Amino acid sequence: MEFDLIELIRRHTAQARDDVRVGIGDDAAVLAVPAGQELAVAIDTLVEGVHFPRGTTPADIGWKALAVNLSDLAAMGASPAWALLALTMPSADAAFVEGFAEGFAKLAQPHRLALVGGDTTRGPLTISVAVHGFVPPGHALTRAGARAGDAVLVTGTLGDAAAGLHAVQHPPRDDDRTGLRGFLIERLNRPTPRLAAGTALRGQATACVDVSDGLLADLGHICTASGVAAEIEAALLPRSSALLELHDDTTALHFALSGGDDYELCFTVPAARVAELQAGLARLGCGATKIGRIVEGEGVRVRAADGSRLATDRPGWEHFA
Amino acid sequence: MEFDLIELIRRHTAQARDDVRVGIGDDAAVLAVPAGQELAVAIDTLVEGVHFPRGTTPADIGWKALAVNLSDLAAMGASPAWALLALTMPSADAAFVEGFAEGFAKLAQPHRLALVGGDTTRGPLTISVAVHGFVPPGHALTRAGARAGDAVLVTGTLGDAAAGLHAVQHPPRDDDRTGLRGFLIERLNRPTPRLAAGTALRGQATACVDVSDGLLADLGHICTASGVAAEIEAALLPRSSALLELHDDTTALHFALSGGDDYELCFTVPAARVAELQAGLARLGCGATKIGRIVEGEGVRVRAADGSRLATDRPGWEHFA
Repeated sequence: MEFDLIELIRRHTAQARDDVRVGIGDDAAVLAVPAGQELAVAIDTLVEGVHFPRGTTPADIGWKALAVNLSDLAAMGASPAWALLALTMPSADAAFVEGFAEGFAKLAQPHRLALVGGDTTRGPLTISVAVHGFVPPGHALTRAGARAGDAVLVTGTLGDAAAGLHAVQHPPRDDDRTGLRGFLIERLNRPTPRLAAGTALRGQATACVDVSDGLLADLGHICTASGVAAEIEAALLPRSSALLELHDDTTALHFALSGGDDYELCFTVPAARVAELQAGLARLGCGATKIGRIVEGEGVRVRAADGSRLATDRPGWEHFA
Repeated sequence: MEFDLIELIRRHTAQARDDVRVGIGDDAAVLAVPAGQELAVAIDTLVEGVHFPRGTTPADIGWKALAVNLSDLAAMGASPAWALLALTMPSADAAFVEGFAEGFAKLAQPHRLALVGGDTTRGPLTISVAVHGFVPPGHALTRAGARAGDAVLVTGTLGDAAAGLHAVQHPPRDDDRTGLRGFLIERLNRPTPRLAAGTALRGQATACVDVSDGLLADLGHICTASGVAAEIEAALLPRSSALLELHDDTTALHFALSGGDDYELCFTVPAARVAELQAGLARLGCGATKIGRIVEGEGVRVRAADGSRLATDRPGWEHFA
C-alpha cells in the first residue's frame, strides 16, 4: 500500500532536475549539489488540529506543508531544490493523497522543486517536510547580524492568517463579507513563501527571519541572536484592508503583533539602504514596510502613535502553550 | 518552550563538524557538501503504537528513530553526516526529550553525525528523522542492478526483531529465559545500522536494500527494480540461537521471512565474488550469509530443505495492513 501512495505522489510532483541522480523509489535519494553552492536545509511539521484546523482541504494542507518550509529557505536567502515528505495519516486514503499531492505540486512546480523521497505511515494526521536549497558560500541570511541603527522591515501584511483562523472558527451568520473572509482564509491556508525577496536580500539584509510564530516572537529571535533590541511603531505595521474592515483596531494590532502563520519576512538593513531596497523588492512584486529600528539593549518594544509603550505580554504563539 | 527543548537536544547531540556552517537555531541549517561527493538523503517516521510498542523507553525511541534512517544510508553505501529531527509529542516533556536525546546521541556520536536542525510540535507521539550522507559520484548502491546468476546474501540474522516484539507483547510467566528475550528485545529496540558493511559493498554489490519491512518484501523490491526473480532456501536463512530456542521452526522461519525491523542488509553480488566479499565483511565484524540466487522471472520464491516450494502468502509487513 505504501508504495502505491508514494507512486501517486510521485506522479503529481514529477519534476525533471539534472541534479537528482536517484529519486523516489530507493532507500535514499542521491543528489548532486552544484559546485560553488552551500546547502540550506530545514524541516517543519504540521499536525491536524494544531497547525491547521480540522476540515482544511487536502490540497490546502499539501500547499501549506511545503510553504512553511520554503519560507524557512526564503528567510536564509536560499533557492529551493529538493524536498522529502513524511506523511502520517489514519488510513491509506488515496483521495486525500491525491488532493495533498495536487496542492503540494502547485507550489512546487513554479519553483522547480523536486520531491525526491518520502515515507508514508499510519497514525494521526501529521506531515513533516524537509526542504533543501542552495545559497552561495557565506551569503546565507541569519538571525545574528542586526546592529543598532538598522531599520526593521517586514514584507507584505501581518495578521491576516490569524484573522483567517478566526474566520474559520467563527462562521458568519450572514455572508455579505464573504470576499474579505475568503481573502484572509486564503492567507491562512495558502501562504506565499517570500523566496524572490529572500534571495534579493542576500548581501543587503543584516538579519532575517520568517514570521511563523508572530512578529514579536520572531523579531525577538533576531534580537536574541544579534544581541540587540528592537523598537516597533504600532502605527507602521502593515495590515490588509480585509483585516482592518473585519476587526477593530485593538484586535487587528494583536493579530499583527502576535498572530502566527503569516510567513512574511522580517529583516534588518542599514538605515541608509532602506529606500533602494524597498524599490528593488517592489520590482519583484513584494512590498516591504519599515516598522521600526534596532537599538542597544534586549527584547522587542512596541510604541503606540502617542509615543506610549504598549504592553505586549503575549510574546507569540508557543507550540506547547 | 520549543526553543528550550531544541536547546536540550542540541546539548546532548553537539558534534563539531567543519562542514556545518550554520547549525541548530536559525531558520535553516547551512551545510557544505565536500567536493567530489554526492548527497544521499532519506526520511523515515516512527509512530507510537505502530513502529514501536507503547512503553518503549525514550532512549530506545531516540536510538531507533536515527537507526532506521542510518540503515537507509547503509543500504545506499553512503557515510552519514547530518540529521534533521521533527519531534511531535503530546506535551512539552523535558524528561522524555532528555532520554530521547541521550539514545539518539549514543548512536550519532560514533558516526560523527551532527543534528543540524529540527522542529518540535504538539501532537500524538511521532518522530520523523531526515538523514544526509555522502557517497562518491556513481557509487551509490541501488535496488536496480541485480542480474540472473548473482548470489543473494544477507548480513547478520533475521527474525530477531519480530521475536523481540513478540516477547514484549507476551511477558513471560517465568523468567528462566530472560537473557534470550532480552537479546531479542534489544534487537527490536536498538537495531544496528550496517554502515561499515554498506560502504564496503560499494563497487561490489549489484543491488542492495535494508530489511525493514521483512525479507520477502524487501528482496521483492530488488526483484521489481532489477526485473529479475529470487530463489531463497529456507534452510540457509541465518537465525540467532535466541530465536531458535524460543520459537519452533515454523514460527522462526515466518519471523525470518516476513518479520520487519531487522535493519540488516540484503544484497546481490556476482557468484564468483561471494567468498572474498564474505571475508572482507567478516574483517569488519559483520557476518554475511548466502541465502539464495537471482534467476530470470519475477517475484521471490522460497524452497524448503526437501526442494518443495513454500507458500509465502504474506509478503511482508504492510504499513497500512
